[in-house]
Amino acid sequence: MNVRERMRPWIGEISNYVPGEYREGYVKLASNENNYGPSPKVVEALRQWSGRTQIYPYRGEELREKLAEYVGVKKENIVCGNGSDELIDLVVKAFKGPNAGSYPSFAEYPIVSRINGEKYTPVKLEDDFAFNAEKFLAGAGDCNLMFLCTPNNPTGLSIPEGEIMKVVESGKIVVVDEAYYEFSGKTVVGRIRDNPNMIVLRTMAKSFALAGLRIGYAVADPEVIEALLKVKPPFNVNTLAEAAAIAALDDIEYMEETVKKVKLGKEAIYKALKGKFKPLESDSNFVFADVTPMTSEEFAEKLLEARITVRRFGKLEGYPGDYVRVNAGTEEENMKFAEALSKM
Amino acid sequence: MNVRERMRPWIGEISNYVPGEYREGYVKLASNENNYGPSPKVVEALRQWSGRTQIYPYRGEELREKLAEYVGVKKENIVCGNGSDELIDLVVKAFKGPNAGSYPSFAEYPIVSRINGEKYTPVKLEDDFAFNAEKFLAGAGDCNLMFLCTPNNPTGLSIPEGEIMKVVESGKIVVVDEAYYEFSGKTVVGRIRDNPNMIVLRTMAKSFALAGLRIGYAVADPEVIEALLKVKPPFNVNTLAEAAAIAALDDIEYMEETVKKVKLGKEAIYKALKGKFKPLESDSNFVFADVTPMTSEEFAEKLLEARITVRRFGKLEGYPGDYVRVNAGTEEENMKFAEALSKM
Repeated sequence: MNVRERMRPWIGEISNYVPGEYREGYVKLASNENNYGPSPKVVEALRQWSGRTQIYPYRGEELREKLAEYVGVKKENIVCGNGSDELIDLVVKAFKGPNAGSYPSFAEYPIVSRINGEKYTPVKLEDDFAFNAEKFLAGAGDCNLMFLCTPNNPTGLSIPEGEIMKVVESGKIVVVDEAYYEFSGKTVVGRIRDNPNMIVLRTMAKSFALAGLRIGYAVADPEVIEALLKVKPPFNVNTLAEAAAIAALDDIEYMEETVKKVKLGKEAIYKALKGKFKPLESDSNFVFADVTPMTSEEFAEKLLEARITVRRFGKLEGYPGDYVRVNAGTEEENMKFAEALSKM
Repeated sequence: MNVRERMRPWIGEISNYVPGEYREGYVKLASNENNYGPSPKVVEALRQWSGRTQIYPYRGEELREKLAEYVGVKKENIVCGNGSDELIDLVVKAFKGPNAGSYPSFAEYPIVSRINGEKYTPVKLEDDFAFNAEKFLAGAGDCNLMFLCTPNNPTGLSIPEGEIMKVVESGKIVVVDEAYYEFSGKTVVGRIRDNPNMIVLRTMAKSFALAGLRIGYAVADPEVIEALLKVKPPFNVNTLAEAAAIAALDDIEYMEETVKKVKLGKEAIYKALKGKFKPLESDSNFVFADVTPMTSEEFAEKLLEARITVRRFGKLEGYPGDYVRVNAGTEEENMKFAEALSKM
């Protein structure tokens, strides 16, 4: 028997996640990062902790307390992950499948489901990318675990709370991924108290500018959190991530200021795109656009010439366009983007 | 249907990993850390990178190259994990079960197997904690994936290469966890070329003093590495962990010096224990000891009074003693430990 025969049968079919491209010296508008960078308090905390790498992380409970305070829940409602990527994995490990989610949406839901051997059903959004709960539930069929992303990545559209709650009322496990919450200002986290089948995912990657440090968290009923803690690796969030997260939560004001600037930047990106293409109005820190009659490849190439990277989505099954996603950078970067667009 | 019924059926039975206790201001000899701390080059790199938290990690390939050079293999033979904990999870995800390993050994093998819904068979070591390949294979039965740890945690004993290779010759997937390789100086990594069913796990947590930053790696045949890359989350090793690991690999000399000191320290710990208890001769950076006629609880309590934490293992099924594990600290810490023991 060879090694391949000893692999789980679905391993061969898994397609890897493709990250946004990083190029040294280029303006990166490809990964929905916060290009304003972290709070000075974060930098200071990291410098302080940089000599203490030899000890296993031990501030997990402190971080849970801080996050609970920020969210307005109890520590028992919180579990942290090595990015919300890991929390998706933990949810899939803890709860039965099959799984379902909207299409298009965050690529990690199907990938992580398949990695764990679960079936994943993508349910197409409306033609204008709106979410319709009845159609979603009909398409999701007999699934046990569902993923909603609001504002949705890559479209930037929020799902109205009423639609989310129609899905939650199914009684199935519903993950509501609010990775971009601080940009939309909309959350259903207050509904977890009466709905133990809801799991809200959040991240410090975007608004807090900590993408490199991988700090996601889930907010849910204590019984759900207990299950997630059972499948959580003991030292998943590292020492410096803990230090940075705690420091960032001590400077909410800084985060709010950069979020304000990023939202203005998003408007600038939208306006620049609107002149020539068909962008969606976004509730997040990025703009999704159909760039036809250009191809998304031509579009991305033109921007590379201007030393800017964006995220190509290309053609999407069931949709007529050719799509890209561009996040807001700093004011200067956004002007550079607008200038590059004006030459197209 | 309530939430519990939607969980996978084995979730309730999983017992969490219990980490070594951290107490502020105490000497910690409980987690096999390297109390000499990281290379000054690591601290410098972390300070340099502390302002760049907003970007997703992108130095993964560079780190694989550096590790390949250190190990003496190719980049295609390496995959990195958020600690070797995560690599255990990736291996279990990629390969079929059921799983097996020695007892006692690293607690994460059975925990991670159970989290992923796999059966795990613990096979008792010899009465003197030696590993016997024939008995192991007989006990492991029809398993597909086996975990060997050498030097073994918690016993500190190396498995002779001949015994490891007898297990590898079974053709099943064999994980050889060499977390403590730099202390033993013994490795089977050269055997992967002819044995694509072998996966060697290593970590930068111990010898390189990077436990807090979570950098493990697996060394295996490119076909196996490809499978592990398929199940690996895209940003599992964070930006600062990458920076620290790359810097640490630029200062092998520093690591080798602290390893030398830690090995002397381990001898001091062994001698201190030998006076009163029954320690095993260890090939690693820690010593495992039967502390009868004291109980391991009394032993640990006495050390807490001296502001030292150690790891209690207590009673082990099939063994007559009451066990603790103590890692070597700095020279000063080891003297403090010896002094506390002399008063017992």
